[in-house]
Amino acid sequence: MVNNNVDSLKVAEIGEQGLLQRLHQFCPSEIIGDDGAAIAWKSDRGENLVVTTDVLVDRVHFSDRTTSAQDVGWRAAAANLSDLAAMGAAPIGITVGLGLPGQTPVRWVEELYQGMVSCLNRYHTPILGGDVVRSAVITIAITALGQGSPKQVIRRSTAQPGDAIVVTGAHGGSRAGLELLLNPELKGQLTPENYQVLVRSHQRPIPRLDILPILLSLTQSDGASIRVSGMDSSDGLADAVYQMASTSGTGAIIQADKIPILPALLDWVPPAKALEWALYGGEDFELVLCLPPATARALVETLGPMSAIIGTITKETGVCLVHSAGVNHIESLTGQKGFEHFKF
Amino acid sequence: MVNNNVDSLKVAEIGEQGLLQRLHQFCPSEIIGDDGAAIAWKSDRGENLVVTTDVLVDRVHFSDRTTSAQDVGWRAAAANLSDLAAMGAAPIGITVGLGLPGQTPVRWVEELYQGMVSCLNRYHTPILGGDVVRSAVITIAITALGQGSPKQVIRRSTAQPGDAIVVTGAHGGSRAGLELLLNPELKGQLTPENYQVLVRSHQRPIPRLDILPILLSLTQSDGASIRVSGMDSSDGLADAVYQMASTSGTGAIIQADKIPILPALLDWVPPAKALEWALYGGEDFELVLCLPPATARALVETLGPMSAIIGTITKETGVCLVHSAGVNHIESLTGQKGFEHFKF
Repeated sequence: MVNNNVDSLKVAEIGEQGLLQRLHQFCPSEIIGDDGAAIAWKSDRGENLVVTTDVLVDRVHFSDRTTSAQDVGWRAAAANLSDLAAMGAAPIGITVGLGLPGQTPVRWVEELYQGMVSCLNRYHTPILGGDVVRSAVITIAITALGQGSPKQVIRRSTAQPGDAIVVTGAHGGSRAGLELLLNPELKGQLTPENYQVLVRSHQRPIPRLDILPILLSLTQSDGASIRVSGMDSSDGLADAVYQMASTSGTGAIIQADKIPILPALLDWVPPAKALEWALYGGEDFELVLCLPPATARALVETLGPMSAIIGTITKETGVCLVHSAGVNHIESLTGQKGFEHFKF
Repeated sequence: MVNNNVDSLKVAEIGEQGLLQRLHQFCPSEIIGDDGAAIAWKSDRGENLVVTTDVLVDRVHFSDRTTSAQDVGWRAAAANLSDLAAMGAAPIGITVGLGLPGQTPVRWVEELYQGMVSCLNRYHTPILGGDVVRSAVITIAITALGQGSPKQVIRRSTAQPGDAIVVTGAHGGSRAGLELLLNPELKGQLTPENYQVLVRSHQRPIPRLDILPILLSLTQSDGASIRVSGMDSSDGLADAVYQMASTSGTGAIIQADKIPILPALLDWVPPAKALEWALYGGEDFELVLCLPPATARALVETLGPMSAIIGTITKETGVCLVHSAGVNHIESLTGQKGFEHFKF
């Protein structure tokens, strides 16, 4: 039942998305609603400053059961670098705000930092500072700063009918890895190699910063500039397509059989389960990009077999999933999921 | 008893400062240990990017008992803008990461944002975005971005013997206001005006961004550049002087009778209590600056009666407090306080 009394309304009743909508009134409209904000502050080399923030809470976003401190650190850093990649920005550095219970082992905190730095070092990205405070629950607040060419700020809301939808890599692997970590008895169902591939997908996701120079060369050649829209698939591939289509005022058709899925996953579970995890699992941290078809084809050719054109942006609103058994409509996932975030 | 077993050492046993020291190994040494980090990323107008992060936790850093949601918001924004001022930087914007229990009233969150925006609007500073997640405890993680002339990045570690120590305003008011809010029965001891002044000092601190252009005009005249060191007094005036002296490899002498204290506070409590709150109370969010004496005198003259030269940086290490009854040594406060932060 919906509570209509504004004085007693609780955040659990409107969810994360409902709350964000109400908080938008306090932020300039031109800089919000994306993976990060591109700020009208230019570097001496003409680059835009981009900023993005993530908060991770123990037992909500990570768990000792599936994730070591080093993996928590890696994933936290990777998620923020992925948000920068999704904005078309290369990383400058991150800040780390930590809330810690007094009983947290010092070694856990040091391993958290080791994990973050392992990921950040790959991209020559420093930790710029932060804050450590006492809290009843382990909380990790990361803000990542990045820089991007103003020609190539990637937004989710600028997709156009006729654009091809590209994914930069396989989906479902992270969700499969989580399943294996939550249910150790399943391990025997896979070869050791396949087990490693899937668990690693969950524990050590790779932010797709490598896509940016490739994209820049494909879209900025000959002085002309080709439009790119996109976001990352951290909240799921279906959610990414839905967000881009709805914020762009368009629709989308996804061809289920075009979605790249790791052989390790297809070897393990039935195709329908693999597809479900690919669409809704989340945390694969690939980019989902909308581009003119010719550019999309050139991009996929450059990126190789685990990237693919999975569908098309349509004039008609609504997101349809076409597969061998027929057509499904994909509903908004964020409302539900936002509610989940606040359910105890 | 100190636990020497590194595997079982808890953060409560080494405190905030102990933990920060261990985490420094993960950050480039040149950008940490100050109120914020000045980053080697320059704007098209030659300004440095400056970034600072604060995490505030319910029942650790604020309380419904003394602070409305709007005041929590104001204080959170003010504390971050004060950190920028302490680095010599004007604000660009802030990001806000929120952790919220599902039972938090939506109205509380909106009022928190109203308080933040009221403070930020004074400085034309936008909220650039953020994140909202579920948590067992209300957590507010703010990262502030600022820009400062590379000529005037203010650091705490560059004070030199002979420098005069300037405070930009009165101290002790915030601690007095907290005392009044914690003990409502004390209200009758003050005039309504004095009560308001002190409570307001606690609830609505003013970040001293107004100091920066004054400082720039006093220290950059005639093409020559005059060195300024400094930090804000958010953790207490005594702590600020101690931090600057120790990180600069110097000492300091503070003249107790020079510390500006609000008449409203002196009218209420004995001088010794007022001095204690001025030195150790914290959260007055003034700047504490070390400057050549002539520049210090010019600054105090410009700022008016609530600013003052309160002492001198000395070659001999150690911080001494000189008052009518003799000389006290001020010990490190941060070790103790860090420990307090983690004590339950």
